[in-house]
Amino acid sequence: MITPDLERIATDLEGLEETIIARLIDRAQFRRNGVAYLPGQSGFEGEPELSLFALRLRYQEEMDACFGRFAVPEERPFNRNLPPPRRTVRLPPNCLHLDAYDEVNLTAQITDSYLQLLPKICAEGDDGQYGSSVEHDVYAIQAISRRIHYGALYVAESKYFADPPTYRQVVDAGDTEILMGLLTRPAVEQRILRRVRHKTRALQASATADTRITIDPDVVCDYYAATIIPLTKQGEVIYLQNRIAHKGRTP
Amino acid sequence: MITPDLERIATDLEGLEETIIARLIDRAQFRRNGVAYLPGQSGFEGEPELSLFALRLRYQEEMDACFGRFAVPEERPFNRNLPPPRRTVRLPPNCLHLDAYDEVNLTAQITDSYLQLLPKICAEGDDGQYGSSVEHDVYAIQAISRRIHYGALYVAESKYFADPPTYRQVVDAGDTEILMGLLTRPAVEQRILRRVRHKTRALQASATADTRITIDPDVVCDYYAATIIPLTKQGEVIYLQNRIAHKGRTP
Repeated sequence: MITPDLERIATDLEGLEETIIARLIDRAQFRRNGVAYLPGQSGFEGEPELSLFALRLRYQEEMDACFGRFAVPEERPFNRNLPPPRRTVRLPPNCLHLDAYDEVNLTAQITDSYLQLLPKICAEGDDGQYGSSVEHDVYAIQAISRRIHYGALYVAESKYFADPPTYRQVVDAGDTEILMGLLTRPAVEQRILRRVRHKTRALQASATADTRITIDPDVVCDYYAATIIPLTKQGEVIYLQNRIAHKGRTP
Repeated sequence: MITPDLERIATDLEGLEETIIARLIDRAQFRRNGVAYLPGQSGFEGEPELSLFALRLRYQEEMDACFGRFAVPEERPFNRNLPPPRRTVRLPPNCLHLDAYDEVNLTAQITDSYLQLLPKICAEGDDGQYGSSVEHDVYAIQAISRRIHYGALYVAESKYFADPPTYRQVVDAGDTEILMGLLTRPAVEQRILRRVRHKTRALQASATADTRITIDPDVVCDYYAATIIPLTKQGEVIYLQNRIAHKGRTP
């Protein structure tokens, strides 16, 4: 049996912060370009319904699916009905106990929250660069999703592992509020938020106003506080409910 | 007629540096994973010949082609026989004079140089993460290619624009060495190299050794000096030869 290593998990989560921040900065180099998010306005031949953003995300995930991306626990797809992998992905065994990784899939909420974030990091208006905008959108939400699902799965398992009877009892009692309280570590969350603000500044320290558009560290910090951390915990709750209902009783 | 704005062009080139450096750091989080670059070793169903790297690049460019990426002058494809765009890309007019943007296409040299760079930024060995490795490879070479072709096209045009008779004379004389000398600005190159070294440090300043693998600023700087700058100038030469042979005489 592989046991969870909380220190390693925390380190991995920390390493994903730079990627999320860098992707948001990349996207911010283009304007809001609202038309790219309007259904039916993609201008894409044979695709009368979806937005350019939705199309790019679907194309990206169809490609990723062929390469086996979704065999990785924390890589959860935003789309359904993707093609099967065309290569065998050999992954090291992990510590998770879940019938199917996709039982924890928060991608719909991630997309919604990201689209609400966009006006806060991009200048208003339209620069015509729709293709580049949605390309960077997709890289950004994939990075955000990886962080949320990685945390949801591995942090939940490591917390459960440290005290199975308590988690079983709380999950069996069906009180999500108490469970959420048990999963909340205010000091850890405050440390994450300080670090994210600091990194957003550091990653932009070399950019002059002429060469790169910068984003507000507080906006990234608020997005972590209002979305990334709460969605991670929501995913932890789902993980634990599934773990305990399906597998917890038959170790 | 649109005239080139050298200051704006230099600023745009500078803004691309962060992207290249960030992509190289992303790739360095994985090991060398040499098997991903071996032809016939992709493990990809129905693809007995190409490497996983070559396959990922082809899939990525097929998708990008559908979205119209290669309508952009500085986005030159690494593959041939890509599908036609499925959307109309409306770009603002530009200052370039070239029958076809693809007359300047240095992607073969970019791939070669990048594969030689890999062992200098990645730890030796194999971590099994082939899919992630080639995904980041593709983002990295696309960023490098954008910078080289943007420079080749726009810097060459702006230099030509500043002094057409001299450039015509040197190109007509067929002496590439003199032309290369004319295109070389040692002080500008030194400034770029200093900046790239500084940015590579700055972008990694917030990463601790535990959370992110770092890359050596000198390696990035050397890659700029030995590859990015020379290939950009090689592209400038090709641009000017084409511009003058095809269009220069009939303004």
